[in-house]
Amino acid sequence: MTDFGTTTLPYCSFTADDLDGPRVGVGVGEGVLDLTGLAPALLPDLAPLFAAGTLDALLATDRETWSVVRTALLEHVSGSPEVRDASGVELRLPFTVADYVDFYASRHHATNVGRIFRPDGEPLTPNWNHLPIGYHGRAGTVVVSGTPVRRPSGQVRSAAGTISFGPSARLDIEAEVGFVVGTGTALGESVPIGRAEDHLFGVCLVNDWSARDIQAWEYVPLGPFLGKSFATSVSAWIVPWEALADARIDPPRPEADLQDYLLPAGHGLDLELEVAVNGTVVARPPFRTMGWTPAQMLAHLTVNGASLRPGDLFASGTVSGPERDQVGSLLELTWNGTEPLRLDDGSERGFLRDGDRVVIAAVARTHDGRTLPLGEVEGIVA
Amino acid sequence: MTDFGTTTLPYCSFTADDLDGPRVGVGVGEGVLDLTGLAPALLPDLAPLFAAGTLDALLATDRETWSVVRTALLEHVSGSPEVRDASGVELRLPFTVADYVDFYASRHHATNVGRIFRPDGEPLTPNWNHLPIGYHGRAGTVVVSGTPVRRPSGQVRSAAGTISFGPSARLDIEAEVGFVVGTGTALGESVPIGRAEDHLFGVCLVNDWSARDIQAWEYVPLGPFLGKSFATSVSAWIVPWEALADARIDPPRPEADLQDYLLPAGHGLDLELEVAVNGTVVARPPFRTMGWTPAQMLAHLTVNGASLRPGDLFASGTVSGPERDQVGSLLELTWNGTEPLRLDDGSERGFLRDGDRVVIAAVARTHDGRTLPLGEVEGIVA
Repeated sequence: MTDFGTTTLPYCSFTADDLDGPRVGVGVGEGVLDLTGLAPALLPDLAPLFAAGTLDALLATDRETWSVVRTALLEHVSGSPEVRDASGVELRLPFTVADYVDFYASRHHATNVGRIFRPDGEPLTPNWNHLPIGYHGRAGTVVVSGTPVRRPSGQVRSAAGTISFGPSARLDIEAEVGFVVGTGTALGESVPIGRAEDHLFGVCLVNDWSARDIQAWEYVPLGPFLGKSFATSVSAWIVPWEALADARIDPPRPEADLQDYLLPAGHGLDLELEVAVNGTVVARPPFRTMGWTPAQMLAHLTVNGASLRPGDLFASGTVSGPERDQVGSLLELTWNGTEPLRLDDGSERGFLRDGDRVVIAAVARTHDGRTLPLGEVEGIVA
Repeated sequence: MTDFGTTTLPYCSFTADDLDGPRVGVGVGEGVLDLTGLAPALLPDLAPLFAAGTLDALLATDRETWSVVRTALLEHVSGSPEVRDASGVELRLPFTVADYVDFYASRHHATNVGRIFRPDGEPLTPNWNHLPIGYHGRAGTVVVSGTPVRRPSGQVRSAAGTISFGPSARLDIEAEVGFVVGTGTALGESVPIGRAEDHLFGVCLVNDWSARDIQAWEYVPLGPFLGKSFATSVSAWIVPWEALADARIDPPRPEADLQDYLLPAGHGLDLELEVAVNGTVVARPPFRTMGWTPAQMLAHLTVNGASLRPGDLFASGTVSGPERDQVGSLLELTWNGTEPLRLDDGSERGFLRDGDRVVIAAVARTHDGRTLPLGEVEGIVA
C-alpha cells in the first residue's frame, strides 16, 4: 500500500467483510478512511453523494462541491482520523467509465512508434504538432488495478504475409496517466482551456495493454481496435486534480503555431512514472515531457461540440521521455523485441510472458521539493 | 409515423403528457402500445423489466425472455390492442448506449473511400478481406432520431497545406444499420458465430454524421475521432432480431480464406435503405451486399476476450452497393463534392447545408415477398 500522507487524499471505492456494500474511501497514510460511513457526521448535506459507494454521484456535481468535500477531509484528517488497514479492504473500480479516450501526447513515443512501424516514412505524422491526436477506446473493458489480464488471441500477419490466428506473441504495456471527468457538458458545448479545471476531477494511472501484432495488422485505416480493447487497467485511487496544484508546470513549447482553441496551453504536471516488470524497474517515464496538456486534450475533445459525461476517462497516451530508459512501452524499450531487456532474475523479455507482473507507479514532484505518491496500477498476465 | 403492422413489434421508449415518466412502447400499426402500463396484466412476472421506461433491463435478460415477451405481444396484438396515436408521444433514446463500435463492412464503401482519400494506393487495405475492420466511437453522443445536429467546428488542412479552424465545410452522412447487444459476457469470453443470436437483441438505423474535412486531417494514424464524435443518430425503434428471421440471406462469398472464428458466416439481412435529403431520395443502399455479417462482427469484436455489456451498439459502417445510386454517403454520391447532387427543389449539394433534413429509412424484404418497415432516423443540420 502506498503511503498517501495527509494532503493528497485520493478517493477509492472499497468493500470489506464487516461492511454492507461498497464504500467511498479516502487514502490517509497507508490506511483507508470510510467516507460513506463518515459523511453523515462530517458532511451531512452531501452524504447522499457517497451512499452508493462509488464516485459516480460526486463526479456529477461540480468543482465547488469537490472543494467543499476536500476541505472538510483535510480538516478531518488533521485530527486523529479512524482509518482502516488497507490490507483488509478490497479496492474496486472507483467510478463507472462513461467514454474512454486515449491520446498520443508524447512526442517521443509517437516518434519512436513511427520509426518502428513506418520505417520508410516521416516518424511523426504532420498533424501531431497541430493537435492532440486521440481515439476512442473500449470503456467496458477498463478494469481496476489487480485484475488479471488475459493474453488476447487475434489475427496477425507474419513478415512473409501469412495470416494466422492465435494468442498474441507481442503483448505489451503502455504506461499512461488518466484524467477523470467530473461535471458533464451539453451536446454542442465546448470546454475552453480556461474552463478545464471546472471539469477535471482527478488523475489516475493507466496501463493500456496492447497486443502489438494484432494492432499492426488491424489498425490501417481506422485505428487500433482489438489490439487494445481486451483490457485497460486503471489505478484504484483517483487523486484530486486540486491535490496536484503544486506539481503544475509549463509544458514544452509547441513546434507549430497552434489554433486559438489550444492556447494558452494550460498546465502540465511534474510526474515521474516507474514501470516494473516482476520487480525489476525497467523505465522511469517523465510526464513533464508530454507535448500536450490535459486542458488541451479536453479542449480538443470537445471543440466539435461532443458532450462530456461524468465518468468520462481520457488518458495521455504512452508516457515516453527522450532517453531510452524513459519510455513507457516494451515496444520502445526493446525496439520491437529486437533488443531484449534483462530482468533482475536474469531472464530476458522482448514482450510479456504469461505470469509476468507489471506495476506502474508514479509520484508528483512539487515546486517546494516534496514528492506526492499517486499509487500504482498492477496487472498479472494470465 | 411508419406503419409497423402487427408482426414486427419494434420497441421504443416514449413519454406523453398524460403519463408519469418514460414508458417502454411497442410499435403496432401506426400507433404505440404502452408496454410499461400493460405489463403488470400481460406479463406480471416480467413487469419490473419495463418499469423504468427504457429497454435497459430487458436487454440485460436473455434470448429466452425476449422471446417470451415477443410471443405475449404477438398474441396480445392479434386481438384489439389499445394503442396511442404516435403524434401524441415523444420518442426518446430507447436504451443506454454502453460501448459504440462502428464497422466498415461494405466492400463498395471501403473501396470508394480508398479511391477518394488515398488515390495513389490500393483502394482496399489488405486487411479488409480478412477481418471486419472496426473502431470505437463515442457512446455519449449517440442521439435519438429527431435530435438537431449541430455542424461541428474543427481543424482542417487545405490542399495547399494551410491549417485553419472553423465550421466543417464537408458535413456528410453515413447510412448504416445498427445492432443492439442484449445479454452481456464476462471479460475473457468470446461469442462464436453460432452464439451470436444469444446476444443480438435487435436492429436500428444509424446516421453516423461525418465531417470529412476534419476527419481527413486527423485520422492518421489512430483513426476517426472528432470528425465523427459530435453526433451519431439512431432510430427511435429497435426491431427485434427475431422479427427479421424471414429476411435472412446468405452474404456474398468472401474473397479470402477466412480464419475459423469467422466461419460459417452467419446470416446477412435483405434490407433496402433509402436516403432522402430535404425530401429528395438520393440513394437506395442495399444491405444485402455487405461483406461481413452481424454475427461475424460480433465474433470479431469479442475474439480477443473483450466483454459485452447490455446496450453495446455496433453499426455496420456505411451501406453502399455497387451502383452509384446505391451508396450511403454524400462523399461517394458526389465523389468528394466534385459531382454535386441536384435535389428536387433545383438546388445542388456537394455536402450538407445548414437546415438540411436527412432521413434514412429502411425496409426488410422477406423470402415470401413481404416488406417490413424498420422505421427511420432523421436529423436536421442546425
